[in-house]
Amino acid sequence: MNYPSKLIENAVEEISKLPGIGKKTALRMALHLLKRDEKQTLNLSEALTAMRTKTQYCRQCHNISDDILCGICTNPKRDESVLCVVEDTRDVLAIENTSQFRGLYHVLGGIISPLEGIGPGDLNIDSLLNRIAEKQNSDSAIKEIILGLSPTMEGDTTAFYLTKRLKPLNVKITTIARGIPIGGDLEYADEITLGRSIVSRIVYE
Amino acid sequence: MNYPSKLIENAVEEISKLPGIGKKTALRMALHLLKRDEKQTLNLSEALTAMRTKTQYCRQCHNISDDILCGICTNPKRDESVLCVVEDTRDVLAIENTSQFRGLYHVLGGIISPLEGIGPGDLNIDSLLNRIAEKQNSDSAIKEIILGLSPTMEGDTTAFYLTKRLKPLNVKITTIARGIPIGGDLEYADEITLGRSIVSRIVYE
Repeated sequence: MNYPSKLIENAVEEISKLPGIGKKTALRMALHLLKRDEKQTLNLSEALTAMRTKTQYCRQCHNISDDILCGICTNPKRDESVLCVVEDTRDVLAIENTSQFRGLYHVLGGIISPLEGIGPGDLNIDSLLNRIAEKQNSDSAIKEIILGLSPTMEGDTTAFYLTKRLKPLNVKITTIARGIPIGGDLEYADEITLGRSIVSRIVYE
Repeated sequence: MNYPSKLIENAVEEISKLPGIGKKTALRMALHLLKRDEKQTLNLSEALTAMRTKTQYCRQCHNISDDILCGICTNPKRDESVLCVVEDTRDVLAIENTSQFRGLYHVLGGIISPLEGIGPGDLNIDSLLNRIAEKQNSDSAIKEIILGLSPTMEGDTTAFYLTKRLKPLNVKITTIARGIPIGGDLEYADEITLGRSIVSRIVYE
């Protein structure tokens, strides 16, 4: 495409590097910004730069944080004997939104994916093992690790790897339940999900 | 949603002001940038700021331009007796990509839309009339105005208004053809389009 100016071309080029954004959408965004107040674009640029250059990660759980330790790790009301292992910050946000979990998190910073060249060494796995080992036999020992990973090929691979590494540490390992989503229709559920939901059926108490 | 840091919250807030981007997509983009090289974010910020603060508009056709006059207006090979009136730069790009038009453009910078509070006074209409009037009776007189507007309520309103204002200037006024798109199926065409395509049928020569 022949862009009317180098400045636009450059902006479109950079915007289209964002995930899920093609050249056409990028151009629409660029023209949108040109029509709006200059302040909006400057605010956007500044917010992006500040986020990228100043964001810190919690030293304990590796979640994004404003400080050395994040708000969840420093909250005295959270149960530090339960750790939920997740892929990234989005999963922490999703679980926090349910208000059903009162323990702490451990953010892996990715998921094992041979296709994308991400191995166990690229994830925060050693720090997870250290975190458990350090507190063993103390008052604040970690008793349960919940694997909060997506039920995909990569998620299952990561869960399998973690289970193997965690076994020697003598902690209870659990995973979030797989089954028919609430509001979902049995008829349209795939065979694997339906099969698993029968095998791991829940007993009414 | 409780964002893990103020910096992220601020970035998500600004990104989600872009058209078609909600909070979830904005968060995905922010986390994507955090994972990538810092250079990528800085390049994006700089490209946006440069685009917004330095972009010029062609003095003659109001298209985005690197100079006082744009590359199309200054091209001696273009036919300056035909003017295509379009809503914005995207339409210029779309028509240029067809390689079927050798005239010049006039970018309105929007379209009459009472719902969004955009009236004729907000568009580059006076400069269009001046542009035609100035050259009248000269060698480079404008002989035809093609209304290249979308066949929507707003496009038709704008076309109707322009026709009324252009009539006294004694130029030929045409509009891009409406009809069944190439590759489209008669059966699935809506009644209005099909009806119009029969009324304005094309004679085989």
